[in-house]
Formats: sequence, C-alpha cells, structure tokens
Amino acid sequence: MNLKQLAKELNLSISAVSKALRDSHEISAKTKQAVMAKAKELNYQVNPFASGLRKQKSKTIAVVIPEISNFFFSMAINGIESIAQEKGYHVLIYLTHESLEKEISIMKLLQNGRVDGIVMSISSETIDTSHLQEMKNKEIPMVFFDRVAESIVAPQVNTNDQEAGYIGTEHLINKGCKRIAFLSISDHLSISHKRMQGFQLATNAYKFKKSDVIIQHFGTDDAEARKNLVRLLKSKRRPDGIFASVEKLALMVYDVCQELKINIPEELKLLGFSNIHTANWLNPSLTTITQPAFEIGQSAASTLFRVIEKRGLDYPPEQLILSSILVERNSTR
Amino acid sequence: MNLKQLAKELNLSISAVSKALRDSHEISAKTKQAVMAKAKELNYQVNPFASGLRKQKSKTIAVVIPEISNFFFSMAINGIESIAQEKGYHVLIYLTHESLEKEISIMKLLQNGRVDGIVMSISSETIDTSHLQEMKNKEIPMVFFDRVAESIVAPQVNTNDQEAGYIGTEHLINKGCKRIAFLSISDHLSISHKRMQGFQLATNAYKFKKSDVIIQHFGTDDAEARKNLVRLLKSKRRPDGIFASVEKLALMVYDVCQELKINIPEELKLLGFSNIHTANWLNPSLTTITQPAFEIGQSAASTLFRVIEKRGLDYPPEQLILSSILVERNSTR
Repeated sequence: MNLKQLAKELNLSISAVSKALRDSHEISAKTKQAVMAKAKELNYQVNPFASGLRKQKSKTIAVVIPEISNFFFSMAINGIESIAQEKGYHVLIYLTHESLEKEISIMKLLQNGRVDGIVMSISSETIDTSHLQEMKNKEIPMVFFDRVAESIVAPQVNTNDQEAGYIGTEHLINKGCKRIAFLSISDHLSISHKRMQGFQLATNAYKFKKSDVIIQHFGTDDAEARKNLVRLLKSKRRPDGIFASVEKLALMVYDVCQELKINIPEELKLLGFSNIHTANWLNPSLTTITQPAFEIGQSAASTLFRVIEKRGLDYPPEQLILSSILVERNSTR
Repeated sequence: MNLKQLAKELNLSISAVSKALRDSHEISAKTKQAVMAKAKELNYQVNPFASGLRKQKSKTIAVVIPEISNFFFSMAINGIESIAQEKGYHVLIYLTHESLEKEISIMKLLQNGRVDGIVMSISSETIDTSHLQEMKNKEIPMVFFDRVAESIVAPQVNTNDQEAGYIGTEHLINKGCKRIAFLSISDHLSISHKRMQGFQLATNAYKFKKSDVIIQHFGTDDAEARKNLVRLLKSKRRPDGIFASVEKLALMVYDVCQELKINIPEELKLLGFSNIHTANWLNPSLTTITQPAFEIGQSAASTLFRVIEKRGLDYPPEQLILSSILVERNSTR
C-alpha cells in the first residue's frame, strides 16, 4: 500500500493525502479524519521522515533555468552556489533553453533521488505545469525564483515586478514619451504578466490613449522576434519609448536601431530589465531596471535548504520579494 | 595488493605503472617488463576494466571553470551541455572563482565516483598542479579546454592563442599604434603566456623599441587591477594601444577611459579577447579576437566521452586547436 494507492482509494490527490497525513493546515479537519481512518483501515504506514531519510543522501541540488548567457541567471547561479558551498552541497545546472519538452525531460531525470531539491525558473513555454506538480507529489523540495509557477504551492523568491513595471513606465513618461511599447517574450510568464500590469497601470494613471499604448509578445525565437521588432520600428506610428521586459529584447533594440538609423535617445527612448555589466558602456548607456540577482539566488538556495531540512514536515510556501532598482542612464535622457 | 602499493614496490609513479600494465606506448619496453614481473610476483590482478566498470555509473560529467559571468565560459557550457544531452549525461558545474584552494577542494569532492569525467579550465592561481595529477593517477578521465594544465598528460582543446596574439598586435600596429600595452590577469596561465608570446613576436617583427612594449599582469582582484590600469593610463608615456588578453580587462579599459576622459579610438586604440555579445553596441564598438567558444565546449565534451568510453585503455593526449577570428570594430579605427 503506497501513497498513490491510498489517494486513489480516497479519491483525493496524492498531495492532499500527503498533507493530511502530516496534519497540514491546508487540509480541513474533516478530510484529515477521513484520510487517517482509511490509512489505518488499509494498514498504510505513516512515516513522514522515511522518504526524507531515504533521499537526503545526494548532497546535491539542481538549478533548472532557461539559459545561461544572461547576466541575471549567471549572477543568480553565483548566489545559489555561494550558499550551496557553505552547506557542502554540489550544484547541478540544467538548461531548458526555453523548451517545455526539455523541462519535462529534466524533471523526469530528477525524480530518481539524484538531487535533494530543486531551485528553478520555468521556461517561457511552461503553461501546463503538471510535470512540476508531479515533482511536488513526489515530495521533492522545490523553490521557484524569478519565473515562478504560480499554480504550484511552493516557496517563491521574486522581485517587485509590478511596481518596477510601473516605475520604469513612469520614468519613460517623465522623459517625454507619448507613445510607449512594452515588449516581452511571452504573454503568460508570471514576471512578464506582472511587469506588463505595472506598465498598464502607469499608462492608465497618466491617461494615455489606447492607441498610444502598445503591448507586443515576441516569443523566444530570436529571428522571429527581430522581424517583429523591425516591423514595429518601421511602422508609421512608431513608438517614441520602449520598455523591454527582458535583457535580450533591450539589446535587440540597439541592433535594429543601428540598422534602421534610429537615434537613441533622441528619436526613441529605451529602458529594459537587465543585469548586464556593460550597460554603462553601451552606445548610448542603457537605463535599466536591475534585479538583485545574486541575492535572489542566495535567498532561493537558503529557502531550499530550509525546506530540505524540514523535510517530512510542512514548510510554508512563503513568498520572498526583493526590490529591483531603476538605474537611469543615457538611453532615456 | 593495490596499484599504489605495486607502484611503491617498483619505485615508480602510479601513473607509470598503470600505463605499463596497459601496454602504453609512453612506457619503455624495459619498464613494462619490470612492472609485469613484479605484478606477477606480488600476485597483483591486472584488470584494466575493473575501475572503469565500477565508476562508469554516475552518467554525470563535471565542468570546472573559473567563473560563469563571462561569455566565453557560458557559451562553452552551452557547447558542453549540447553534447552531454545527446549522450544522456548530467552536467555538474563547479566554479573555482580563480582560487587554487577552491579548485583543490572541488577535486577532492570529485574523487568519490560522483562523476565519470571532468572538463576543466584551470584557475589563474593554479601553478602547482599536483591536485590534478592526483586525479590522473586515480584514472579519472579529464579533458582541459582554454586554460589548460600543460604539465598534465591529458587531451586539450584550445585556440591558436599565439597566432591570435600576433594577429591582434599586428592589427594595432597597422592602425598606427606606436606604443602598445599587453594586459593580462596572470603571468603563468598557458593562454596568457601564448597570447603574450604572439604579442612579443609581433612587436619584435615590427622592430618596436623595448620602451614602447609594455607587458602588465594585473592579477584577478578587480579593484587592484583597476588601480594598476589607472596608473598605466595616467602615466607620462601612456600607451596609444591596448591589447587586453581577457574580456574583463577590455571592459575595464572602457570604464577607466570614461573616468579619465580618454577618447577611444582617437587617443587609445583597444582590442581584446572577448566573446561578449554586446561588442557591437559598446561605445565605441569593441574590436575583438573571438574564440569559437561553443565549438570548444563541444569538442572538449566529445573528447571526454571518447576518453570515458575507452576507459581502461590508453587514450592519446591529443591536442585540438580551433581558430579564433579577429573582428574589427570601432575601438581600433
């Protein structure tokens, strides 16, 4: 008799049964009673530490991220690694390259007890999160950072994306932009969504006409995104301000503006979420919303180790929010 | 009776005995005979596959590199990962942060069979390589890339550093530089050394006076390096050309020139080894020697898998050399 069979007998999810057996506050008293009674009836052995003890041997954590050639993620890895090192843990790094399929296959690899826990930022293709729920059901400790899976009950470490979206947009407006485009790679990633909400709140607050508020989701294919950007910047009513919600789109704007001979910031002001260390020496230097990437990595890893140590017990799915900062440079002068 | 004891009895290195037992071409016939005789006498069981079979279970390789916030290494990791994925292998990434001590402790961690092999670029502090020789003695497959340990007999994947050093220097000379500084972070890393040799060959070929040829090793401490760079650029006879042998020094030149109001390229021409994806949009755009980083990572991983598959047999310590290219941009106009 295992947890899965017990859950089936009860017509409940594995996760709910597991939580009931551990007296979680998320489960009603009535359900807990039913689960306990059935467990007793079927002689199911409740041992909240068993799986923990069995699996806590790898001294390894996995970091699953979309890409590595991005300063946010490389700095976050440095943060994660600094904590893992203190704890004497190994760090396995997996790249999804923004592919849901790849992400699913990585999760399958990680189910065999190879790692004690996972720190993760989901791919931009990840809408269906059943592969992540499966990890939760198997009680593999997980912490999400930056790109979180909102449907999964797990700790999250994030930045104040909506507020930063508002502040960035307000900055463009204060610099005289009358027609602003918000560019993202995805319309469903939680961070894109929150940044966009901040953008919308700001353009509403400043009473922008609908026709002067442009929102475009370019997808993750670089060639396709570039085509869309060229189209936008060649259009008759081209924006005089761009808010790039991810680093690579900000850099793409430099590239396309060079090609189309559009002068930044005279003809187009540009601001982007970015941790790039050359922001200062770009031509012109790039105004950024900079996330505390190293600290985010550290917090995510510290939280994961707390979850691992509390294994078999409930750990509150706490949400940590660190603040990004606006760094004004010449691209919005 | 193990290999270590046998080696001690013979007064030979473990590596030499191991090779002799496997009939390696690197060992003389006389030594082989002596080793075989002693092995028979002491009843040592020769089983070239035993250790391989025991250890080939992790389906994991380690990548040990100095840092991750560097485009060369992040692209090389992408290359390594692409091959590992094909082979169904996990990739563990370890960062030495340019510390020999950290590198030694990582090597100790990796001795327990956790990985089937190691792809590695050494730290800039690594002069004594006995910790690497120990890994070799334990027959853990290793492949070096970029920053190789020349004293260790193992496959190496590299670029034509000396030639690229020559070509880069010649480019600065052709652009009119009369007094050129070569900047590195270390005076003993093989790549620094080869790039410097290329620089020296070129300045010699063009009959530069000694006083117009400046070579400075700044070390890995960023603050210290920056101080040294400020001193160099404030000096009376400041160079009119700089060859930065690593990416971060090239970026530091932008920073210091901005502070000292030195105009690039009018007053100072700048060229650097770099894979940075923003080279084109820097102010001014950066002339680079660009290494085929992704391909280097792929070659290193492919070679490692060949070594792993041939485990227990000799694998030639082949040296692969891929070519870097000079990409001329505005910093040397």
